Amino acid sequence: EFAKIDHHRQLRTGFPEVIWGPGKTPDQIAQIMIKMKERSPVVMATRIEPEIAEELEEKIPGLIYYPVARICTLKTGQIPLKSPGMISILTAGTADIPVAEEAAITGELCGFEVLRLWDVGVAGIHRLLSHRQLISQADVLIVVAGMEGALPSVVAGMADCPVIAVPTSIGYGVSFGGVAPLLTMLNSCATGIGVVNIDNGFGAAILAGQILRSAEKIAKKINPLQ
Amino acid sequence: EFAKIDHHRQLRTGFPEVIWGPGKTPDQIAQIMIKMKERSPVVMATRIEPEIAEELEEKIPGLIYYPVARICTLKTGQIPLKSPGMISILTAGTADIPVAEEAAITGELCGFEVLRLWDVGVAGIHRLLSHRQLISQADVLIVVAGMEGALPSVVAGMADCPVIAVPTSIGYGVSFGGVAPLLTMLNSCATGIGVVNIDNGFGAAILAGQILRSAEKIAKKINPLQ
Amino acid sequence: EFAKIDHHRQLRTGFPEVIWGPGKTPDQIAQIMIKMKERSPVVMATRIEPEIAEELEEKIPGLIYYPVARICTLKTGQIPLKSPGMISILTAGTADIPVAEEAAITGELCGFEVLRLWDVGVAGIHRLLSHRQLISQADVLIVVAGMEGALPSVVAGMADCPVIAVPTSIGYGVSFGGVAPLLTMLNSCATGIGVVNIDNGFGAAILAGQILRSAEKIAKKINPLQ
Amino acid sequence: EFAKIDHHRQLRTGFPEVIWGPGKTPDQIAQIMIKMKERSPVVMATRIEPEIAEELEEKIPGLIYYPVARICTLKTGQIPLKSPGMISILTAGTADIPVAEEAAITGELCGFEVLRLWDVGVAGIHRLLSHRQLISQADVLIVVAGMEGALPSVVAGMADCPVIAVPTSIGYGVSFGGVAPLLTMLNSCATGIGVVNIDNGFGAAILAGQILRSAEKIAKKINPLQ
Amino acid sequence: EFAKIDHHRQLRTGFPEVIWGPGKTPDQIAQIMIKMKERSPVVMATRIEPEIAEELEEKIPGLIYYPVARICTLKTGQIPLKSPGMISILTAGTADIPVAEEAAITGELCGFEVLRLWDVGVAGIHRLLSHRQLISQADVLIVVAGMEGALPSVVAGMADCPVIAVPTSIGYGVSFGGVAPLLTMLNSCATGIGVVNIDNGFGAAILAGQILRSAEKIAKKINPLQ
Amino acid sequence: EFAKIDHHRQLRTGFPEVIWGPGKTPDQIAQIMIKMKERSPVVMATRIEPEIAEELEEKIPGLIYYPVARICTLKTGQIPLKSPGMISILTAGTADIPVAEEAAITGELCGFEVLRLWDVGVAGIHRLLSHRQLISQADVLIVVAGMEGALPSVVAGMADCPVIAVPTSIGYGVSFGGVAPLLTMLNSCATGIGVVNIDNGFGAAILAGQILRSAEKIAKKINPLQ
Amino acid sequence: EFAKIDHHRQLRTGFPEVIWGPGKTPDQIAQIMIKMKERSPVVMATRIEPEIAEELEEKIPGLIYYPVARICTLKTGQIPLKSPGMISILTAGTADIPVAEEAAITGELCGFEVLRLWDVGVAGIHRLLSHRQLISQADVLIVVAGMEGALPSVVAGMADCPVIAVPTSIGYGVSFGGVAPLLTMLNSCATGIGVVNIDNGFGAAILAGQILRSAEKIAKKINPLQ
Amino acid sequence: EFAKIDHHRQLRTGFPEVIWGPGKTPDQIAQIMIKMKERSPVVMATRIEPEIAEELEEKIPGLIYYPVARICTLKTGQIPLKSPGMISILTAGTADIPVAEEAAITGELCGFEVLRLWDVGVAGIHRLLSHRQLISQADVLIVVAGMEGALPSVVAGMADCPVIAVPTSIGYGVSFGGVAPLLTMLNSCATGIGVVNIDNGFGAAILAGQILRSAEKIAKKINPLQ
Ligand SMILES: Nc1ncnc2c1ncn2[C@@H]1O[C@H](COP(=O)(O)O)[C@@H](O)[C@H]1O
Ligand SMILES: Nc1ncnc2c1ncn2[C@@H]1O[C@H](COP(=O)(O)O)[C@@H](O)[C@H]1O
Ligand SMILES: Nc1ncnc2c1ncn2[C@@H]1O[C@H](COP(=O)(O)O)[C@@H](O)[C@H]1O
Ligand SMILES: Nc1ncnc2c1ncn2[C@@H]1O[C@H](COP(=O)(O)O)[C@@H](O)[C@H]1O
Ligand SMILES: [Mg+2]
Ligand SMILES: [Mg+2]
Ligand SMILES: [Mg+2]
Ligand SMILES: [Mg+2]
Ligand SMILES: [Mg+2]
Ligand SMILES: [Mg+2]
Ligand SMILES: [Mg+2]
Ligand SMILES: [Mg+2]
Repeated sequence: EFAKIDHHRQLRTGFPEVIWGPGKTPDQIAQIMIKMKERSPVVMATRIEPEIAEELEEKIPGLIYYPVARICTLKTGQIPLKSPGMISILTAGTADIPVAEEAAITGELCGFEVLRLWDVGVAGIHRLLSHRQLISQADVLIVVAGMEGALPSVVAGMADCPVIAVPTSIGYGVSFGGVAPLLTMLNSCATGIGVVNIDNGFGAAILAGQILRSAEKIAKKINPLQ
Repeated sequence: EFAKIDHHRQLRTGFPEVIWGPGKTPDQIAQIMIKMKERSPVVMATRIEPEIAEELEEKIPGLIYYPVARICTLKTGQIPLKSPGMISILTAGTADIPVAEEAAITGELCGFEVLRLWDVGVAGIHRLLSHRQLISQADVLIVVAGMEGALPSVVAGMADCPVIAVPTSIGYGVSFGGVAPLLTMLNSCATGIGVVNIDNGFGAAILAGQILRSAEKIAKKINPLQ
Repeated sequence: EFAKIDHHRQLRTGFPEVIWGPGKTPDQIAQIMIKMKERSPVVMATRIEPEIAEELEEKIPGLIYYPVARICTLKTGQIPLKSPGMISILTAGTADIPVAEEAAITGELCGFEVLRLWDVGVAGIHRLLSHRQLISQADVLIVVAGMEGALPSVVAGMADCPVIAVPTSIGYGVSFGGVAPLLTMLNSCATGIGVVNIDNGFGAAILAGQILRSAEKIAKKINPLQ
Repeated sequence: EFAKIDHHRQLRTGFPEVIWGPGKTPDQIAQIMIKMKERSPVVMATRIEPEIAEELEEKIPGLIYYPVARICTLKTGQIPLKSPGMISILTAGTADIPVAEEAAITGELCGFEVLRLWDVGVAGIHRLLSHRQLISQADVLIVVAGMEGALPSVVAGMADCPVIAVPTSIGYGVSFGGVAPLLTMLNSCATGIGVVNIDNGFGAAILAGQILRSAEKIAKKINPLQ
Repeated sequence: EFAKIDHHRQLRTGFPEVIWGPGKTPDQIAQIMIKMKERSPVVMATRIEPEIAEELEEKIPGLIYYPVARICTLKTGQIPLKSPGMISILTAGTADIPVAEEAAITGELCGFEVLRLWDVGVAGIHRLLSHRQLISQADVLIVVAGMEGALPSVVAGMADCPVIAVPTSIGYGVSFGGVAPLLTMLNSCATGIGVVNIDNGFGAAILAGQILRSAEKIAKKINPLQ
Repeated sequence: EFAKIDHHRQLRTGFPEVIWGPGKTPDQIAQIMIKMKERSPVVMATRIEPEIAEELEEKIPGLIYYPVARICTLKTGQIPLKSPGMISILTAGTADIPVAEEAAITGELCGFEVLRLWDVGVAGIHRLLSHRQLISQADVLIVVAGMEGALPSVVAGMADCPVIAVPTSIGYGVSFGGVAPLLTMLNSCATGIGVVNIDNGFGAAILAGQILRSAEKIAKKINPLQ
Repeated sequence: EFAKIDHHRQLRTGFPEVIWGPGKTPDQIAQIMIKMKERSPVVMATRIEPEIAEELEEKIPGLIYYPVARICTLKTGQIPLKSPGMISILTAGTADIPVAEEAAITGELCGFEVLRLWDVGVAGIHRLLSHRQLISQADVLIVVAGMEGALPSVVAGMADCPVIAVPTSIGYGVSFGGVAPLLTMLNSCATGIGVVNIDNGFGAAILAGQILRSAEKIAKKINPLQ
Repeated sequence: EFAKIDHHRQLRTGFPEVIWGPGKTPDQIAQIMIKMKERSPVVMATRIEPEIAEELEEKIPGLIYYPVARICTLKTGQIPLKSPGMISILTAGTADIPVAEEAAITGELCGFEVLRLWDVGVAGIHRLLSHRQLISQADVLIVVAGMEGALPSVVAGMADCPVIAVPTSIGYGVSFGGVAPLLTMLNSCATGIGVVNIDNGFGAAILAGQILRSAEKIAKKINPLQ
C-alpha cells in the first residue's frame, strides 16, 4: 500500500488532499486519482510534466490537463463558487506566469473567482500604479515574482488586504533558483505579507482560499442569520 | 529630516506605521513617537530593549512598556475592537514566548482579541491533541516555533483556517539562528500556511489582522446592508 | 589495483563491505563483486541505475536486481536471521519509498526482519496515530521523510526505542535537495534520534542492524549461558 | 501557564522530559524543576551557565551543579542501574571535553555506566589504536570531535557496535561553529553511525540509552524467562 | 615597516589612499595619518569607533571626527570643488543613515557636492514618488537600503543616470547581516545599477566620484577648449 | 496579455526595455519583439540559445543573431553614436569571452564605441601591465573574470575611471558558479568598482552607457551652450 | 585575438601555461595547442571530455589522450626527469581515481616520477597502516579523497613530508559536490597540509612539482658545487 | 587524564605537537606545557589571549609571550637552524600582520629563517612589483591576505617556488570572516598554491617547514655523502 489517502482532509481543513506529482510513477498517480475520485468531486495533481500528462490521459478517461500550470484534474460537473470574495493574482514578469497559473487554476478548481494581472514589475512602476484601484480594493492578493522579488513590498504598501508572496525560480546568478526573491519577501519592511516556498503557486492559492473561507466564518458571526 | 512618517498608511492599508527600534537612537525614537501621536490614537515601537525603554519613559510621559514583548506604546483611551474574529497564538516551547508575546501585544494594540496557548510542541503530541477543538474552531492561527519548527505542519493539518508560521531563533547548532525552522515551515507538506521572517511576531500579528479585516469586507459583500 | 577489498570488515564490525556504485565503471563493479563472492555469502552493490544493472546482469550470472531500491546482490543460499529483533521502517510520503526500500532491502540482505509502513506523514496526523501501538512496540525505527521532515520528531515522542532519521531529497525550492529535512531532524526537540546523510537508506539499515546486534551482546551479559 | 510539563514522557519513551535552559528565565527553570520533582526521582536541566546555576542554587535546595557539563540536577536517593551495558565516550581533543561531559553526566543521571576516553584524535592515530580492544568490545560508542571531525569514521571502521557521532563547535575559520565536523560525520564512508546536532552531548546520551534499553527488550525475546 | 603608503594612488586613480580602521591599533592609524598628511591635503580614516577617535584626537592635533559617519579626517584649508556634478544619496529607512553618512562625508571630503534624502523606502511609495524630479534630474545616485533592499530597483526604473546600490546590515532574521538586500540589488530587473559591499558607503562615494570625474574627461572631448 | 511593454522606459532612463529570453516561449519573444519594433529603432533580446534563435529567425524577418553573445536584434538603419566616450572591456581568460561579448554587443547596439581586450588575467600580470596606458586612459572599464575574479582589483588600482566588475560562472569546485569571483569583486580593497550579477554582461553595458550619458549631462553644465 | 599565451610562464615559475578546456571551443583549444607547440616541448590541455578529444585528434596530428585523467597532450620526444624526488599519490576510494590520475599524468608529463596507491580510505584503517613505510619515506604526498575526506588528516599524522590534500566531488547528499571533504581538509588538526580546489588533481601535481623543484634549489645551497 | 600528549609526533613528522589554546583552561594549558617541556627543547601554545598569557606567566617560570602572534613558548637554549632555506612571508595589508606574525614566530621557533614583507596588496601593484626579485628567488612563500585575497594569485604567477596562501578574517560584509579570500585562493588560476584554513598562520608555517625539510631529504639523494 504505497499511499494512504487522507480522505478526511476536506472535512478537517476545508480542502481535499492534492497529489504532488514528482517522485511518483505515472502508475501510482493514476491509481491515487482514480481512488480519490470515488469520494471527491474534484481531484487534482500538480507538477505534471507534459509527457507524464500524456501517459495519464491514456490511463484515466476524462482527465483534463492545463499545460502552463502543469496541473491534471478530474472533475464531476460544475464547481460551485465557494466565496463572494475573489483572489487577485499579480506577476512581476512574463516568465513568472507558469507559477501564477498554478495558483490561478488551483484557485478556480477549488471554487474561487480569480483575477489575473501579469507583468507589472517594479522596474517600470507606472505599470503597477495604473492598477492602484484594483490593488486597494482586492480581498486577497497573490504576488508572484522572481529575480529580486521586490513587487510584494510595493504592493503590500498599497493594499488593504492580506498579501501572499510567491518567489519564483526565474532569474540567474545570485537569484539562487529563487532564494533571493524569497529573502526579499521575508525581509519586507511592508507589513501584511505571508510567504510560501519558491514556485509554490499551489500553496499560495490554498492559503488565499483559507483566508476567504475564514472571512465567511466571521461574516456569519457578524450576521448569524445568514 | 531623519524620518518621513507615513501618516497615510492607516488609510491605505488599515494599519498605521510602526517604529522599528534597532538602528535608531532613543532620541530619534522619541521624536517619531511624539510626532506620530498627533495623528494616531495608538503609537507603537517594537524591539525596544529595557535600557532603551527606560530612556524613552523619561522622555515621553504616558509611555507603556511590555518587557517580554519588548514593545513601547502610547495610547489615547480604550482601543476599540476591530473584528468579531480572534487571533489564536500557539508556541512550541516556553522559550518561544517572547516572540509570541510580540505578536499578542501587537494584535491587542491593533484592536483584536487574542487567545494564548503556550508550550504545545510536537515532542509530546498529546499536549496539542488535547486542544484539537480550539484549533479546528480558530479564525486565524499564529504558530510560533524554534528548533525544528514542526508545529505549524501538524497544526495546519488539523485547522480549518489560515495558519501564520513564525520561526524563532531559539535553538543551537544547525538551527542557524532560526533558519532551520524557517525552512521547515516553508517546506511544509500541509497547506494553508504563510510564513514570516524569523522572530517576526509583529509581522505575523499584522497579517492576522489583515485576514480578519478582509473578512469584514467580504461580510459586507454577503450582506451589503451592514 | 583499483580496489583494496576490506574482506576483514565483517569480522571487525559485523557487516561486510558493500560496493557503492556511483563513480565506478560497470567493469570495476563486476570485478569487485566477483572477487568478494569468493569470501562472502552475500555481496551487495548500492545506487545501481537500471542501465548499469543490465550491464552487470550480463557480466555476472546469478545477479539479482531490486529496481526500486537500486540494489544489486549476489547470494549463496538462504540468508540466516541475525536477530529476534525487527527493523520497522516508516515513510512520510509515497515519493520517499525508494530510499526506504534501500533501507529495507539492505536490512533483509543483512539478515534482519523488516516491517514497512508507507505514507504516514504529519499533515494528516491521524494516519500516524492509528499505528501508535506499532510504534511504541518497535525494537528500532527508521523514519524516512523529505520536504519539511517533521515525521521523526513526532515518532520519537511516541517511541520507546532508538529512532534513525533519514532525510530524503524529495521536495523543491528551499528543501535544498534534502538539507531542510536534515536540519529538521538534527534540531529535533524529541530525543533518541540519530541522523544519517540525505537519501542514505543503506546507512540507516546498517545502523539499525548494529543496534539489534548490540542487543545480542547485552543479552549474553544478562544470561551468559546462551 | 508558560510550560506544559510532559509528565507522561517517561512512560512513552523510557526517559523523562529534561529542561533545556537557554531562553528561559531562572525563575521559570526553578518553577519547572520544582514541579517535576513531585513526580520524577531525577530532574535535569542542561545548558545552565554558572551565573544561572548560582541563582538556581539559591532558589532550589538540594540542587547539584556539574560545571563542566553545565547540568543542574535534583535527585532523590541513588539512581538504579538501568542496563548491564555501558556507554563508552571518546573525544578527539581536550577542548571537546565539556560536550563529552554533557553526555557522560546525562548518561549517569539516567542510570547507565559510562566509560570516558579523552584526547585520542586522528592526528596521532597510535593513541587510538592503543585502545583498539576497548573500542571493539564496546556496547555503544559516543564519539565527540570538533575541527575536521574525522574520529567517528575511523572508530566506526574498528567497532562492532553502533557509533553515535557528536560534532562540536571547537575549531575556527571554516569549521563554521561545528558545521564542518557535522558534515564529515554525515558523509562518513564507514557505516553504523548516527549523528546528532552540534554540541548535543545530551541527545547523544539519550540515544545511547535508548540503544541499551532496546537491547534489554530483545534480550527478553531471546530469553523470555528473565 | 607595518604600512607601505600608496602616495602615488591619487595620481593613478584620482583619489588618495584612505585608511581602513579595523584591525589596526590606534598607534598605527595615527602614524599613518601623520605620514600621509605630509603629501596629501586631505587624509581620511574610516570605520573609527568613538573610543578610538578619542585616542586619535589626543595623538593628532587638528583631527576632525564625524561620529555618525565614523570618519576621522585631517585637512589643510578648504577642499576645492572637483566637479559641477552632484552626488545624490537616498536611504530607505532611518536606520540606514550611518552608512549613507559615510558616503556623504566621503563625497564631501573628496570635493563633491552632496544632496541627502533620507527615509523614502518602498513600503510607502508616495514618499519616493513625491521626489520624482530630484531622481530624474540627478547626475549620479547612491541608494542605501537594508532589510529587503528594494529601493534601488524602483529608483533605477525612474532615473536617467547611473545608480550605485549600497546594501546595509540593518534588518534581522534572514536579512543575514545585509546579504538579503545585496542579493536583491544584484538581481535587480532594473538596469544601470552597480553594487558595492554591505555597508560600504565609502566605496559607493568613491565610485560616484569616479563617475563624475569621468564625465569631466568626456566633457573635454566634447569641448576640447575647456 | 502576457507582457506589458514599458515603451516609456527610453524616455525615463535613456535606454529602452530589453527582452530577457529565459522562461519565455519563442512565440512570446517574437510577439514582443514585433510589438516593440513599432516604436523603437533597435529591439534586443538577450540569452537566446541557438535553437531558439533559429525559430525566431523564421518568425521575424530581418532578425540578426550574435551567437557568441547570444543576442538577437532587430534594427532600422544605422545606430547613431551616443557619446564621444568609449567602453573598454577586458577579460581574464578565453572562457570569459561570451559574457564580455554580451556586454560588447549590447554596448554597440545602444550606440557606444567598444574596445575589446581579451585574456589578460592576473596569473601572468605582464599581459595586463603591457596595456597600462589603455587602462589609465579609459573612460569607463568593464572587467570580466571568472575563477578567482582578481582582475578588477588590479585594474581598479591602475585606472582613473569607474570600473564595472562582471563575475562569470567560469570555474569549477568552489567557484560555485560565479559566487567566488563575485565575492572577490565586492570585497575588493581597490576603490571605484561597481559590481553586477554573475554573467551579467548586458547589465554591465547599460551601466557603462549610463555613465557615459551622465558625462554628457555634466558636459552641458560645464558648457551650457552646446 | 581570443588568447594571449603566457610563453614566459615556464621561465618565471618553472612550469608552462596549461590549457583549461571547459568554456573553450575545440577550435580554440586546437589553435592554442598548435601555437604553444612552437615554443614548448610538452603542451597540455586538461578537462577534455572524450567527444572533444576526438575532435581534437582529428585537428591535431600526434595528439595523445588520457581518458581517465581527461588530459590531451602534444609532446616532442622523451620528457627528461626533473628531480630525484618522487610524487606519491593516494586515494581513499576507487571512485576518486580519475582525479588522482589527473594529478599523476600531469606530474609525469611535467617530468616527475609518480607512485600510485589507490583505495586506502580510513573506514578500513589497516589498509593504510600496511603502507606505513611508503608514507613515512615519501618526498611529497598527494592525498585524494571524497565523501568525508578524512584520509589526509590521518596520513599527515604519519608523514614526514608535505601533504597536498585534494577533495573530490565523489559523494552525495551533504557532501555538496566536494565541499564537505574540502572543509575537512582545511580544518585538519594534523599539520603540514596544503589544500587545493575540489577535483583539482592538476593543481596538486604542479604544487608537488614546485615542492620538489624548490628542494633542488636548496640542495644547491647545501652543496653549491653541483 | 584530559590530554594524551603525542610525544612521538616529532619523530614521525619532524615537528612536535603544539598546544591549541582555545577551549582549554589556563590550568590545562599550563599542565600540558610543563609536561611537554620534559621531553621537548621548545614547547609552543598558540591563540593565547593576553589575559590568559598573564595567568600562564604566573604559573610557568620562563614563559615567553609574543603578543602580536598570540603565541606562548618555553625554550631551552638557542634553537638550531633546521635548513639553509628560508620562509618568506608577505601580507596584503597592515591588518593581516597578526596572522603573518603567527606564521613568522612559529617558523622561527621551529628553527627556520624568516623574511617579512608587509602591506604589498594588489590595489597598488607597484608595491609588489618593486619586490619582484625577492619573490622570484624565494624558497617557499607564505602569502597572507584578507578582504578579496587576490595577492597569492599575483605572487604565484611571479614565483618559482611553492606558495602557501593564508586567508584572513580581515574584512567585512561579504568577506564572511575570511571565506571570500579563502575561495579566491582555492580558485586561483595561477598554479603552485596550497591553501590553509582562515587565519591559520601556524599551519602555513609548519607546511613551509615541511617543504624546506623535504628539500633536505632530496638534497641527500642528490649527494648521498652529505
Ligand atoms: N518588529 C518588526 N519587524 C518587522 N518590521 C517592523 C517591526 N516593527 C516595525 N516594522 C516596520 O518597519 C517599518 C519602519 O521602519 P523605519 O522607517 O526604519 O522605522 C515600518 O514599515 C513598520 O511597519
Ligand atoms: N548507498 C551507500 N551510502 C553510503 N555508503 C555506502 C553506500 N553503499 C556502500 N557504501 C559504503 O561505501 C564504501 C565503499 O566505498 P568504495 O571503496 O568507493 O566502494 C563502503 O565502506 C560501504 O560500506
Ligand atoms: N584542471 C585545471 N584546474 C585548474 N587550473 C587549470 C587546470 N588546467 C589549466 N589550468 C590553469 O588555467 C589557466 C588557463 O586558463 P585559460 O586562459 O582560460 O586557458 C592556466 O593558468 C593554467 O595553469
Ligand atoms: N593556531 C593553530 N591552528 C591550527 N592548529 C593548531 C594551532 N595550534 C596548534 N594546532 C594543532 O592543534 C592540535 C592540538 O590540539 P589539542 O589536542 O586540542 O591541543 C595539534 O595537532 C597542533 O598541531
Ligand atoms: Mg516584462
Ligand atoms: Mg516545553
Ligand atoms: Mg501521501
Ligand atoms: Mg590533544
Ligand atoms: Mg521610516
Ligand atoms: Mg588564458
Ligand atoms: Mg573501496
Ligand atoms: Mg595598506
